Formats: sequence, C-alpha cells, structure tokens
Amino acid sequence: MRLRNNPKANEILENHKDIVVFNPNENKGKWHDVFGNDHPIYIEIGMGKGDFIIENAKTYPDINFIGIEKFPSVMVGALKKIDEEEPLANLRLMKVDAIELNDIFLENEVSRIYLNFSDPWPKKKHAKRRLTSETFLPIYQNILKRDGELILKTDNRTLFEYSLISFQQFGLQFEDVCLDLHHSDGYEDNIQTEYERKFSPFGPIYRIVTKFKGDES
Amino acid sequence: MRLRNNPKANEILENHKDIVVFNPNENKGKWHDVFGNDHPIYIEIGMGKGDFIIENAKTYPDINFIGIEKFPSVMVGALKKIDEEEPLANLRLMKVDAIELNDIFLENEVSRIYLNFSDPWPKKKHAKRRLTSETFLPIYQNILKRDGELILKTDNRTLFEYSLISFQQFGLQFEDVCLDLHHSDGYEDNIQTEYERKFSPFGPIYRIVTKFKGDES
Repeated sequence: MRLRNNPKANEILENHKDIVVFNPNENKGKWHDVFGNDHPIYIEIGMGKGDFIIENAKTYPDINFIGIEKFPSVMVGALKKIDEEEPLANLRLMKVDAIELNDIFLENEVSRIYLNFSDPWPKKKHAKRRLTSETFLPIYQNILKRDGELILKTDNRTLFEYSLISFQQFGLQFEDVCLDLHHSDGYEDNIQTEYERKFSPFGPIYRIVTKFKGDES
Repeated sequence: MRLRNNPKANEILENHKDIVVFNPNENKGKWHDVFGNDHPIYIEIGMGKGDFIIENAKTYPDINFIGIEKFPSVMVGALKKIDEEEPLANLRLMKVDAIELNDIFLENEVSRIYLNFSDPWPKKKHAKRRLTSETFLPIYQNILKRDGELILKTDNRTLFEYSLISFQQFGLQFEDVCLDLHHSDGYEDNIQTEYERKFSPFGPIYRIVTKFKGDES
C-alpha cells in the first residue's frame, strides 16, 4: 500500500489509549488481563484500515481481537472507523512489526493468526520478508496454541503459490484450501477486507487454513 | 469424458502390437528390456487421446514414455494419431487401471508420473477414486524412483484443492505450484493435452510438481 505521510498519526494514536496498546510487550503472558476475560485471542498481522478486524470484533463478541499494523498512518484509518462504532470491548490495536511477536505474546497465548492480503514482496531477493516465509513461521508456531490456526487470504497468485510451498516445507498441516473464495460454496461467513472488496472482481481470492502439527507445537 | 462405445476397439488394439503392451505385468522389473535401453521411464495415467504423451515422446527421444488408459475406446484415438506419425521407439501404451500399477512396475522402476486432467469424481463419497487420493499415493510412492516426480495438471479447481490437501497429508514435498499455467512465466515448455487446448481459455490451469520424501521412498 502506498503511504501518505501523516505527521499527526502518532498524536491520534495517543488519543486512543482505550484501543491502542502502547508498550505491548508489558502484556506478554497477561493478555487475558487486558481484556478482563479468558476468551480466545485472534490476531491479524497487517490489519490495514481495519475493516476485517472491526467487523470480526462486532460479529464475535466472545473472541478477543488484536489488530497489528506497522504503520501509524495506516492505523489512523482504522481508528477513524472505530470512532464511528459502538465501543468494542474485545478489540485492541498495536503498532508493532511481526518479527517482534515473540516479545509480545507468550507461547500458546494466541488461538488464531490472520494474514490478509499481505505484502507480496515480489522480488525473489526479498522472499524472506514475506509474512509466510520461514522467517516468520517459527514465531507463529511459538505463540499459537496447539490446534491454533494460521489463515492466509490473498489475491496475489505468486504469494499464494510461494506460501503453499513454504507452508508444506515447514510441516504445516493443510486444513482447508480454497482457490476462488468468492465463487465457492461454504464460505458465506467470509468477512472481507477493504482491499478484498475493491479487488475481488478482478480475479480470484485465495485462502488456506493451516495448523502447526500437534506434536511440534 | 463421455465414452462412445467402440466394439472394434479391442480389435484395433490387437493390430498395434508394436505400440500396445498386452499382459504388461510380464514386464515388471524388465521395462528397460522392452525399450532396449536404460533411459528413464515416464508414465501418464489416463492419457486420453494421447496428445500429451505422443508430443512428449517426439520431444524427448531419450525418455521412455508409457501411456496408461482404462478405456480401449479412448486408446483407439491415440492409436490413430500414432499411425500418422513417424514410428516412435520410445512410446508404449497399455490398457490398465491405476490400481494395478504395483503389478506392472517394480519398486523404483518409474522416474516420473503425470496425472493430466484426471476424473474429478466430484461427489465426496467417491473421493477415494480420485487419482490423487490416499488410495493411489502409496502405489505411486512404491513404483517411483527416489527423487521421482508426481506431476498433476488440471483445470478442475475442486480436484486441485483436494489434491493439495491430500498431497500435504501424505507427506509429499511440493517442488513447484502454479495456479495459472497459461499466464505464468517459466512454463513455455508446457505440452498441452487435447482437453487443455480446448478448455484453457475458460479458466486457469493448475499444476503441481511433487516428490515423495527421500527418506521414505
């Protein structure tokens, strides 16, 4: 996504202390205290403007959602949308890089990880920056509960092809694969991202649900 | 494929004893004698009207090709095409069912298996009949050489989705995945089947190259 610089972004984040978690690593192992309940924690890495995670938080009040985004100027878009909603007690956002997730969550603290329309990093020399590369899979494996799911959704064919191979080679178990999400039966509960709504008319949306094998997690 | 009954099919097969192998199980472990050389053996299971395997045999004279087909009336179509070609010393056809392949090839006798546009058997209760199901994978594993490849090409999205999961669960290693073969770089050497030529304008052709893991084969 091309970013417009927003010098006021950090100020806006500061004004949303009820939603934005600052110093999230202080909550490592204590995320259930943040939410005040023992509900499962689902995270979205790269939440963009937040449509997906906000809609999820509204639809599933018994799940705790944490939206993760690297860029403050992008988070501002999500905060604007949240301001227009009824308060959502089961939603938090934080500005961190996926590479830091081991400092923020304890082993088995997360029940599901969503990767939606992640940056494809199309150049081969940047493959390790892709969120589905072996750079990140051990981190996900560490923070995910046994039987927790890693779910990738993208319209980028090359990223999806790469991810199928990367997941297989890492030993992930394929639970479900869909090569055209918007033209398949059984996915009526799909919650769209803002990007997905815009670009799905131009080609298929790919999705895979995986688990790290029980005996390794 | 809808089949027209061809009562003369078996007679036509009998008249092509140079190409059609009768009693193929008598060659188990001795296929190199049939071809009179030690070249690798590639087989296509469900060769249909033979465009793919005939073109391969012409393009790669140093590979021995065996086209396998269950239905005599379909094989007749391939034989007609072969009659129009210069003789191909590196091509044989046989009428067998994939389930019998362990009786026809010795362990490690085959270097590559092609599955092209296999019957999708769309009903769930018929899943075990799909050529990419756990019914057949142990057979392929047995007859394939270490490092031998199993290559699936299809336009059937549901079959391909199923196969990705089936292959992963069986422990196959993904070497290459392409979700739109006719619109991807690097596949210029793709040899089309007659079905592929007809139906590829209407949707993507999917392809995966897999290996059985070295320590298991």
